[in-house]
Amino acid sequence: VLTGLGTLERVLDLLGVFVFALAGASLAVRKGFDVVGMVALAFVTALGGGVLRDLVIGSTPVAAVQDSWYLVVVVGAAGVVGVAHRTVEAMRRPVLVLDALGIGLFTVVGAVKALAAGLDVPAAVLVGTMAAVGGGIVRDVLARDEPTVFRADSTLYAIPAAIGAAGTAVVWELDLYGPASAGGIALGVTVIRLLALRFGWRAPSVGSRPA
Amino acid sequence: VLTGLGTLERVLDLLGVFVFALAGASLAVRKGFDVVGMVALAFVTALGGGVLRDLVIGSTPVAAVQDSWYLVVVVGAAGVVGVAHRTVEAMRRPVLVLDALGIGLFTVVGAVKALAAGLDVPAAVLVGTMAAVGGGIVRDVLARDEPTVFRADSTLYAIPAAIGAAGTAVVWELDLYGPASAGGIALGVTVIRLLALRFGWRAPSVGSRPA
Amino acid sequence: VLTGLGTLERVLDLLGVFVFALAGASLAVRKGFDVVGMVALAFVTALGGGVLRDLVIGSTPVAAVQDSWYLVVVVGAAGVVGVAHRTVEAMRRPVLVLDALGIGLFTVVGAVKALAAGLDVPAAVLVGTMAAVGGGIVRDVLARDEPTVFRADSTLYAIPAAIGAAGTAVVWELDLYGPASAGGIALGVTVIRLLALRFGWRAPSVGSRPA
Repeated sequence: VLTGLGTLERVLDLLGVFVFALAGASLAVRKGFDVVGMVALAFVTALGGGVLRDLVIGSTPVAAVQDSWYLVVVVGAAGVVGVAHRTVEAMRRPVLVLDALGIGLFTVVGAVKALAAGLDVPAAVLVGTMAAVGGGIVRDVLARDEPTVFRADSTLYAIPAAIGAAGTAVVWELDLYGPASAGGIALGVTVIRLLALRFGWRAPSVGSRPA
Repeated sequence: VLTGLGTLERVLDLLGVFVFALAGASLAVRKGFDVVGMVALAFVTALGGGVLRDLVIGSTPVAAVQDSWYLVVVVGAAGVVGVAHRTVEAMRRPVLVLDALGIGLFTVVGAVKALAAGLDVPAAVLVGTMAAVGGGIVRDVLARDEPTVFRADSTLYAIPAAIGAAGTAVVWELDLYGPASAGGIALGVTVIRLLALRFGWRAPSVGSRPA
Repeated sequence: VLTGLGTLERVLDLLGVFVFALAGASLAVRKGFDVVGMVALAFVTALGGGVLRDLVIGSTPVAAVQDSWYLVVVVGAAGVVGVAHRTVEAMRRPVLVLDALGIGLFTVVGAVKALAAGLDVPAAVLVGTMAAVGGGIVRDVLARDEPTVFRADSTLYAIPAAIGAAGTAVVWELDLYGPASAGGIALGVTVIRLLALRFGWRAPSVGSRPA
């Protein structure tokens, strides 16, 4: 109930976990990993960012092991990929939309948890962004891929999260934080991410500049 | 004394740490790393799973830095590999047996620590399994190898641990936990692992199924 | 003020963070990462060792998110690399000197934090060394490089840190710890590292011995 969204937040949070877990398990299949690799990549993708968030702010036991629904949903997602990975791969578009929603929600929850733990604005932006993208980075490291969010040819992913985390921190500091602002910011992050996907927005990189 | 096995537990625990450290230092030699890499891989292989376990459940300072015997044993194992790495490599069979024992013990200790910290059954299974296999995964990442436990051609490693962690959680919940049940489960994990090695049991993988 | 050096310590600490962040962002440029990768590698290189240190000893929220100056300095360093990466690359020599100073300071601060948290000498050596070299290892993992400090052809880096951490633990245990001893040890680590660079001192490796 950290964002104040209540039941809706919980459903969306678990939906985000489910979709991140689908992405992790799917990558494991593409890498030829066995079922252990599928479950492990599902776990780190879905819960890794939140674990990093909780460790850094000192909120332990981490949320991922405090609520068995997380674990059930992750294993369920790995199971879905196990029996229907072709179907999941084919549903790339809806998965990307739900993934964008997951980024938005994880960002807001992460930033709020940091602010509630007494961190200031820059730290909350860092923690909120890390909560959204950290799991994917650990997933890529375990799969021996270059972290997707660092690649010059990837569409904006961490930057919408950073914007959302900054927005969350601003409304929090102005005492305007509540279900409406939380939902609005999460949705804003989602929309920016989807626009980046649609129009191929990329972050600048030094190497690509004319010398 | 968490498993209730007392001195025997302690000896076995340090033996498990020693063997895991041997494996880490040996991999460093095969990778051509220097003595720093040997000691570092020995540390993460032997103590990485327990560190992850303690961080996630919030038991800090982590056990690895609370008991200097761990550090002494790890550095000792790296030293043994340094002076006799060919001998260690040649003793592959006894090392695998002791490694299997290490998995069993780390699993039971990990699951019990999680349960004692108030985690429920699914979380204890996750933490117990991670305690047993987490160090090896971090070792492989640092050595830039594909994590062994994820590979479709690897014999069962994480699954015996998960079974043992589940067994530990069940006896704990039934209030049947004690030295006998702890030892029995650790031994059971060891035996399953050794049978998997002997008969080449592998976990299923989606990619290997007929399409 | 942990080392007792006061303002000078703070300036040097932030200077160390700045230089480590420069190294991280520069590696990101060489890898062709975008601005997200630059900022991320700057963060993990500069603050990763300290985060590991704080997590292991249980000092949370970690220092990296408790003091916004760290975050400002890291982002600033990434910005400097963004606008002047050729200049930064060309200033290799002064960067290496400041990096050596950073190792010295991070080692002493890390060991002292561990000792102040009640850890004993071997654990403080481990934590102090990890505080100095841990960020670079995580950076190399994220960039998919072999960890530099493990390579047989790398000049001494972790070993000066380990010596400094041991020295810090000794003066602490002898109740001789203070600004003078802290500064002296940090400087000693720096000098050993610079001598290693100058004379090409390398750690032994088993593979390179005659068989």
